[in-house]
Amino acid sequence: MYGLIGKLNIAPGRRGDVVQALVEGTKGMPGCLSYVIAEDAMDANAIWVTEVWDRKESHQASLTLPAVQEAIAHVRPHITGFGERFETVPVGGPGLPTAG
Amino acid sequence: MYGLIGKLNIAPGRRGDVVQALVEGTKGMPGCLSYVIAEDAMDANAIWVTEVWDRKESHQASLTLPAVQEAIAHVRPHITGFGERFETVPVGGPGLPTAG
Repeated sequence: MYGLIGKLNIAPGRRGDVVQALVEGTKGMPGCLSYVIAEDAMDANAIWVTEVWDRKESHQASLTLPAVQEAIAHVRPHITGFGERFETVPVGGPGLPTAG
Repeated sequence: MYGLIGKLNIAPGRRGDVVQALVEGTKGMPGCLSYVIAEDAMDANAIWVTEVWDRKESHQASLTLPAVQEAIAHVRPHITGFGERFETVPVGGPGLPTAG
């Protein structure tokens, strides 16, 4: 599996829009096992995206999906910067296929 | 919803053990919507845990579950420190109940 944890800084007042666009635009991505869009609890202008994919190539391929490109185009003007970003190798846990 | 993103630093050579103990010990936790245990792709002695709960109280209650306490007792001697920790408010996304 392939995982990403990333923080996005969002223009003041735009976080709700961005979150909704991402929720809408990330449905039905092939190979996507989990994609959680979350507001930072302490920073009103930040969101976290935590992703789990069957493999890295699926993540890369997702970026060319029409719905994803639409979401990116929608949110890009409201992104003021990128914060932390970590690559991971998910192993398992409740909510993942391998959790058994 | 209530979310946590946290990094644990693990003693050299112990990461596999710790990951497996966490995978085993976190099954069937009430209110847990997602709990992903992942190896850091760049740091051989670190893991990430990303959690989504229906509410914060469910997370707190989980710490008293026998299986969770067993897992904590098992992994604690191998934890060399705590890294980044972020609290979030998950909104939705593929893999979560609200994703529709």
